[in-house]
Amino acid sequence: MPQPALVEVINFGDELLVGIRENAHLTYLGEQLARFGLPIHRARIITDNVSEIKKAFADAWAHSDVVITTGGLGPTADDMTRESIAEALGAELEFDAEIEDAIKSRFKVLGRSMAAHHLKQCYRFKEGHVLHNERGTAPGLAYRADGKLLIMLPGPTHEMNPMFKKQALPLLQEAGLLSTEEAYLQIRTCGTGESTIEEMMQPLIAKHPALSVAYCVHYGIVDVRLSGREGALSMNCLKAIGQEAREILGDDFVCFGHCSLAKVIFHELRALDRTLAVAESCTGGSVANEFTNLPGASKVFQGGVVCYTNEVKMDILGVPECLLDQHGAVSAECAVAMASGVAEKLSADYGLSVTGFAGPGGGDETNPVGTIHLGYHSPVGVWCKTVRYTGGRLDVKARAVHAALDWMRRKLKKYKMEEMLCCGGSD
Amino acid sequence: MPQPALVEVINFGDELLVGIRENAHLTYLGEQLARFGLPIHRARIITDNVSEIKKAFADAWAHSDVVITTGGLGPTADDMTRESIAEALGAELEFDAEIEDAIKSRFKVLGRSMAAHHLKQCYRFKEGHVLHNERGTAPGLAYRADGKLLIMLPGPTHEMNPMFKKQALPLLQEAGLLSTEEAYLQIRTCGTGESTIEEMMQPLIAKHPALSVAYCVHYGIVDVRLSGREGALSMNCLKAIGQEAREILGDDFVCFGHCSLAKVIFHELRALDRTLAVAESCTGGSVANEFTNLPGASKVFQGGVVCYTNEVKMDILGVPECLLDQHGAVSAECAVAMASGVAEKLSADYGLSVTGFAGPGGGDETNPVGTIHLGYHSPVGVWCKTVRYTGGRLDVKARAVHAALDWMRRKLKKYKMEEMLCCGGSD
Repeated sequence: MPQPALVEVINFGDELLVGIRENAHLTYLGEQLARFGLPIHRARIITDNVSEIKKAFADAWAHSDVVITTGGLGPTADDMTRESIAEALGAELEFDAEIEDAIKSRFKVLGRSMAAHHLKQCYRFKEGHVLHNERGTAPGLAYRADGKLLIMLPGPTHEMNPMFKKQALPLLQEAGLLSTEEAYLQIRTCGTGESTIEEMMQPLIAKHPALSVAYCVHYGIVDVRLSGREGALSMNCLKAIGQEAREILGDDFVCFGHCSLAKVIFHELRALDRTLAVAESCTGGSVANEFTNLPGASKVFQGGVVCYTNEVKMDILGVPECLLDQHGAVSAECAVAMASGVAEKLSADYGLSVTGFAGPGGGDETNPVGTIHLGYHSPVGVWCKTVRYTGGRLDVKARAVHAALDWMRRKLKKYKMEEMLCCGGSD
Repeated sequence: MPQPALVEVINFGDELLVGIRENAHLTYLGEQLARFGLPIHRARIITDNVSEIKKAFADAWAHSDVVITTGGLGPTADDMTRESIAEALGAELEFDAEIEDAIKSRFKVLGRSMAAHHLKQCYRFKEGHVLHNERGTAPGLAYRADGKLLIMLPGPTHEMNPMFKKQALPLLQEAGLLSTEEAYLQIRTCGTGESTIEEMMQPLIAKHPALSVAYCVHYGIVDVRLSGREGALSMNCLKAIGQEAREILGDDFVCFGHCSLAKVIFHELRALDRTLAVAESCTGGSVANEFTNLPGASKVFQGGVVCYTNEVKMDILGVPECLLDQHGAVSAECAVAMASGVAEKLSADYGLSVTGFAGPGGGDETNPVGTIHLGYHSPVGVWCKTVRYTGGRLDVKARAVHAALDWMRRKLKKYKMEEMLCCGGSD
C-alpha cells in the first residue's frame, strides 16, 4: 500500500489569531477529509503579511503532498494570498476574462456594477484550474506542480464549504489522493459518560486488533468513531463491527452518523404520524429550536411555549395555581403539568417539558442550581424525571436540552409497541 | 520602542485535525493575548507524534520569543509532549514530589487512589516553573532559556483557561512581554454591512494615523476593534476615538464591548420597568433563547410562543382565522397580529414576532424562501417590517434573530422619550 498523502492546511487571517472567530474552516476541512480517509497532517494559521505568507507556504509546499489554503482571496489590498503564493511558487498569474464575466454577472443580479478593485480577483494560475464560487466573488484556484496539489479556497464559510465539497473533493479524488468511500463509521450515543462508553467498547477493541476508536463528547452526547488502522478495514467491515457495537451499547445507542436527538425523535413521531409540543422554562426555547432546525419540522412539531413566569404557566399552559403554590415552578409536579398542558393547549399528541434552575441565581436546598425537572406526556403514559448538572448557565441549558431529548428518545423506544397499537386504534 | 515579542501557539491533538472539535484553545488564547496587546503571530496544529512534535517545536522555538503549547500533558501513552519538547530543548526533566502530592490529594477528594500512569505527569523542567492545575491532574509547565519563554498548558478547556488567566498571563506580564492594560476597544454595530461600516470609519482612520481597525462580521453584527499601531494609543485615547466613532455610526452603534442585542434590549426594558414576550414561527425559539441566555432574564422576559402551525397562532395567540386565510401565515399582517397577540396573552408590555420562510422548503412568488416578516407591539405603537436573506436554513434563522432584535433596539432608541413618558403615566 502506498504511503498516504500528507495534507497541510494553511488558514490565512488575523481574525483567527486574535480570538475574533473560531477556526470553523479547519473543523470543516478536517471532518470532510477524515471522512474520506485523508486526515489533515498539519495546520498553520498565519497573519495577513506577505513575507509570512510566502515563508509559511514555501515550508508547507516543501513538506506536504497537498496544500489547502483558506482566506485572503478577497478584493481588498489586505488580500495578498494569491500574489504571494504565486511568487513563492514561481508560477505565473494571468487575467481570466471568464472570471471577470462571472463576477460582473453576480453584481448584475444584485443590481450593482463591479468595482475596479475586483479586477485583482480575475487572476488565475496560468497552468491551473479555477473553482467557481457560487456564493461570492472570489473564485478558488487549483494548481499542480512537482507531483503536488495546491487548492486555494475563499475565507467565508458559506462560500468555502460548498466549493470544497463540490469542486475540491472531486479534484482530490480524481488525483487518486482521496477515497470515494467514507473511511470511518460514527456511532452516536447519549446518556452515559465517555469512560463508561470506552469500557463498553473494550471487548470489541480486543476482538478486532485493526480497529481504531476515537471519542468525542458534547453535552451528554458521546460520539464513537470507528475506523481501521491505516485503512485496514473496509466500510463493510466497519458496518459489521458497528452492529456489534450497537448491541453492546443498548439503549445508549442513538444512531449511526450525525443525526441530532431531535431528528431521531422527529423520525419516530413521523412514523407514528403523531405531533409534539414543548414547554420550557430554564432551557428558554432551546428545545423548540432543536426541532425547528430540522427542515419540514412542522409535520411533527406544533410549537412550544417558553414560560418564564408563573403567570404564563397558568394562563397559557393551565398549570394550576395551587400546584405552583404547593411545589413551586421548579418541581417534578410542575414539569408534569407543563408537559400535559402544552400537549393539550397546542393540540399535540406528545408534550415534553423542562423546568429548573440554570443558574447562576435561583436554587434552594431541595433544588440547588443545576437541578432540572423533565416532564413527558404521551398517549401511553405521563412521566417525570429529575437530573442535576454542574457548570455555567449555558452549559446547564445545553445539558438539559440533551437530557430532555434523550429521555424522550428512550421512552419512545421502550414503548414503541404500545405507541403503535395506540396509534392504530386512535382514528 | 522595542519590537513586540513574537508569540507562537502550538496546539497538539489529532481531534483538532479531523473535525471532531473546534480549536477553542486558539480562540481563547488569541482573544486574551490580543486584549493585552500581544497578538498571536502564528499558530500550528500538530498531530500527536513524537517526531512531528519535536520538529514543529524546534522550528517555533527558533523563530519566536514566546511559545505556548496546549495538550499532550495527560497520563496516557499518547501524551508525549512533555518528553518530546524537553528532548528538543535539550532540557532536563526531574521528578517533583509536590506535583505527586497535588495529584494524590486530588484523587483523595474523589475517593480514589492515584494510578501508576499518573507518575509521568509529576515531571517538570529542572529549571522551570510548575503551573498548578485547579481542575485536573495535568500541571502546566513554564521554562525560560535563550531569552525566550515556553508555556505548556493542558488540553481540556476548563483546565486550560483558568490556568492561563491566573498563572500564565501574570508570568508574561512579569516578564514585561504583556501590558497589564487592555489594548483595544471594541465597538459593536448591527444592521449595516461591513463595507459601509468600513467607509464610515475612513475619516477617523485618516484623522488618526496611529489607529488600527479590525472588523468581525457575524450574522448582521459588525464588530469594530480599535487599537493603536504597535500600542501607540492608550486606552484613554482609544475611548476618545471610540466616542467619535459612536457619533459617526449613529443608530448602527449597539454598544462598546461584547453585549448581545438581547442584553441591550434587556437593559433598556429594565430601565423602563417593562416586560417583553416573543412569538416566533421560523426562528423557532431562537429569539426567546437569546433572552433566556441572560442571567435574571425573568425580570423582563415573560416568555414566548413558538407557533409552528396556524392552529397555535389562532388558539394561543388569537391571530384571526380570516387574517390567515387572506394573507397567509408568512405575511406582515400575521407578524403584527402575532406581536400584539403574544403581548396580550402573556401580559407583557412589548411583543416581538418573527414569521417567514427559513427554507429550504416553503416560499412563493410574493414571499420567496428567505423572506422574514417582523412584528413589534409597544406601548407607543405597533409596526411591521420585512427583510430577506439568502443562505441555508440555519443562516437565515440566525440572520432573522439579529434582524428582529436590532429592529427592536432601534425602535426603543428612537421612541425612548415617548416610552419614558408612557412609562411614567402608566401607574
